[in-house]
Amino acid sequence: MKAVLDYLKANEARFVQDLCEYVRFPSVSAQADHRADLQACAEWMAARCRSLGLETRLCPTEGHPVLLARTPRRPGRRHFVVYGHYDVQPPEPFDLWKSPPFEPRLAGGALYARGASDNKGQHLAHLNAVEAYLKTDTDLPCDLTFLIEGEEEVGSRSLSGFLKSHRPELRCDAVVVSDTGMPASGLPALTYALRGITALEIKLTGPDRDLHSGIFGGSVDNPAMALSQLLARARDARGRITIPGFYDDVRPLSAFERRQLARLPYQERAYARFLGVRRLFGEKGYTVWEQRTARPTFEINGLTSGYQGEGSKTIVPSWASAKITIRLVPDQRPDRVLRQVQRWLRAVCPPTVRLEMKAGHGAEAYFMEPTRPEAQAGLRALEAAFARKPVLLREGGSIPIVTEFRSILGADTLLLGLALPDDNAHSPNEKFDLANYAAGMRVGAHLWRELAALPA
Amino acid sequence: MKAVLDYLKANEARFVQDLCEYVRFPSVSAQADHRADLQACAEWMAARCRSLGLETRLCPTEGHPVLLARTPRRPGRRHFVVYGHYDVQPPEPFDLWKSPPFEPRLAGGALYARGASDNKGQHLAHLNAVEAYLKTDTDLPCDLTFLIEGEEEVGSRSLSGFLKSHRPELRCDAVVVSDTGMPASGLPALTYALRGITALEIKLTGPDRDLHSGIFGGSVDNPAMALSQLLARARDARGRITIPGFYDDVRPLSAFERRQLARLPYQERAYARFLGVRRLFGEKGYTVWEQRTARPTFEINGLTSGYQGEGSKTIVPSWASAKITIRLVPDQRPDRVLRQVQRWLRAVCPPTVRLEMKAGHGAEAYFMEPTRPEAQAGLRALEAAFARKPVLLREGGSIPIVTEFRSILGADTLLLGLALPDDNAHSPNEKFDLANYAAGMRVGAHLWRELAALPA
Repeated sequence: MKAVLDYLKANEARFVQDLCEYVRFPSVSAQADHRADLQACAEWMAARCRSLGLETRLCPTEGHPVLLARTPRRPGRRHFVVYGHYDVQPPEPFDLWKSPPFEPRLAGGALYARGASDNKGQHLAHLNAVEAYLKTDTDLPCDLTFLIEGEEEVGSRSLSGFLKSHRPELRCDAVVVSDTGMPASGLPALTYALRGITALEIKLTGPDRDLHSGIFGGSVDNPAMALSQLLARARDARGRITIPGFYDDVRPLSAFERRQLARLPYQERAYARFLGVRRLFGEKGYTVWEQRTARPTFEINGLTSGYQGEGSKTIVPSWASAKITIRLVPDQRPDRVLRQVQRWLRAVCPPTVRLEMKAGHGAEAYFMEPTRPEAQAGLRALEAAFARKPVLLREGGSIPIVTEFRSILGADTLLLGLALPDDNAHSPNEKFDLANYAAGMRVGAHLWRELAALPA
Repeated sequence: MKAVLDYLKANEARFVQDLCEYVRFPSVSAQADHRADLQACAEWMAARCRSLGLETRLCPTEGHPVLLARTPRRPGRRHFVVYGHYDVQPPEPFDLWKSPPFEPRLAGGALYARGASDNKGQHLAHLNAVEAYLKTDTDLPCDLTFLIEGEEEVGSRSLSGFLKSHRPELRCDAVVVSDTGMPASGLPALTYALRGITALEIKLTGPDRDLHSGIFGGSVDNPAMALSQLLARARDARGRITIPGFYDDVRPLSAFERRQLARLPYQERAYARFLGVRRLFGEKGYTVWEQRTARPTFEINGLTSGYQGEGSKTIVPSWASAKITIRLVPDQRPDRVLRQVQRWLRAVCPPTVRLEMKAGHGAEAYFMEPTRPEAQAGLRALEAAFARKPVLLREGGSIPIVTEFRSILGADTLLLGLALPDDNAHSPNEKFDLANYAAGMRVGAHLWRELAALPA
């Protein structure tokens, strides 16, 4: 084990250079014109896996290719899948980036680039740990398969079918995913629950063209006003979502969970300052950690209507649209909630506009008992790598594929996240802490021994 | 007079070609990168005035130049100012135009181009009438000054100062403006009232960057939701604006006016179909003509927030903004209403977001007694040109400068509009009816004789 850890230490600078190369690919899966960049990015990663001697395939899908890279299978060894994604969120708005999103910049012990933390740095750390085993001729205690996809940020559209068609070779004892966060620098965490998501775009159309607001205004509904009034009704002053049935399937927090969440570090003032808001807002009756991780939300991600350019344009816009994502918690089901929301929208939409709805991606929330042996092994690996006792965490984000690992592969997922709260995932100036990058490699180094040692 | 009318008839095709040239200039005053196009457009018009022998000057302003072109002053003659504007509305969205907005297309007896109806065609018709007088050596019964500005669509920012500094040479008996509409094809109208306007942009800022909606969503207000809830409160289900004091200064419609407006052609079904809506919406208790012309509105012209590109982006957006214009009626004052709206917004804006407001242009509503002799002369000119009895009209649009003509020049304005309801002013596929273009020239031909003949 010392040889592995020494190798990781000795190659730290080169591993950072590798990550710099990896984040230079603008692998934005939401934008069609980046298709070639996604392909190039996947090929770069495939070449890296091959150079370590892993049996590597880039598997085409209807979307972006899935990378499979495996160590040789050995009888009697446990097999784990390490999941990651090489696609990234759109970088917009560009003008808020201090340096270009796809030109990595090292500053303050961190690497700044889109995808550095979410998720390139986190899964590359695992690959580096395997490299350390292989290059030092240390026995890798488990068989591993890296499964790196390119559509996580658009709902992992192809992966479900991929898992089904590759079920035999992906059968495993558990999946390991580092795509979640730590509550604070130096404080490692095992995440035992995730929120789910369901996405929806709505468009209200009034007149069949933009109208002169002087000539026609007053006699025709304004779709932007109709949209505002529609959306306004979705949330009350206490932060509750008012859509009928919305909370029906929410599993209440247990007393144990509330105690765990209450242990997490939190200072209201510092948190508000960190977000840049003067005052927080959330559902009454829940702590901020609970609001962020264990309660569903109705979030407007974007609004579009009428004239948005310079100056003013005196029109009644023809249409107005909103992008919406709904965060779900155990045991809400994306399809059921989506239907509730759609039914409600149809019911409250005024007859003066035409409502169109376009359902986006959905993913169930996730819950895993933290007392399971694999979870305990993960906690020990975290403690060894960070030299600090880890905490148990719920997370507010969604990793759509985690529920599919369970339903298709029958495997639970160990969520060993390396992202810090200020990593700006999905925001301008995304970064990845280099200390966490190094710690993530040590987590990998310890984890396979801990998992291999579990009683059968 | 016959010579004048014959000349107009004989030169009809060439006048259309002239208008085609004029609308080719993309003179979009709201967009800074069109500055040179506005200059070129003004120069084209100046050259045309000079070619008729008018004493012509292009006067620079802080914005776009103002064109002054006058016939020689003769003692004892009445002097009228003919006002128009060579700037146009932004053409966006381009994809809804059937032909490019600045490439004139003749179809169905109309000329399609941005600015054809609003306002290039309408004031060019007046110039053509003067050309007919001059080229046929017919005595022009009045002295005229053409005043053509380039900032009407952005609130005529420079014209007020210009009127003040050119007051002596612009002193006149009345101003003539063709920038309003006719209620139906072949039915001429004199407009005796206009709505005013006041413009406002509001921006609500929450977090100082876009946030990951999974990691932070639920613990922080969503500015797009806050904006929706704020805007939603401005209008109730009966179409009334709820802002305190909003209707305080509204001059009620007289019984005479309601009778006049009730005479205008209107068919609910045809009107809804024309706008492309399945159902109309307006303030309860008023007819559609009243809603459009005699009642104030609160109109959202544009909404912007978060991610608007392809696919979805799971963020809590940092900010959300709305462009708003408020149509005013006599005797509302733009500054007073603007203050009411701003006070209300500050009062109802939640403490979870930061409110910024940017006031735009403002213009008072206009009202002129239709029994005045100049109005009667205008009605006679319309009847002669269209061979049909004109109606009295209120109009819903704003011509900011009309109130300034009264306050600065002490002159009332004759509004003799040539636009049809389906001219798509401010919309894609703007057009100008060529029959109205020709009739507009005849209006000019008759008008100066009618006005010259009024008792002193």
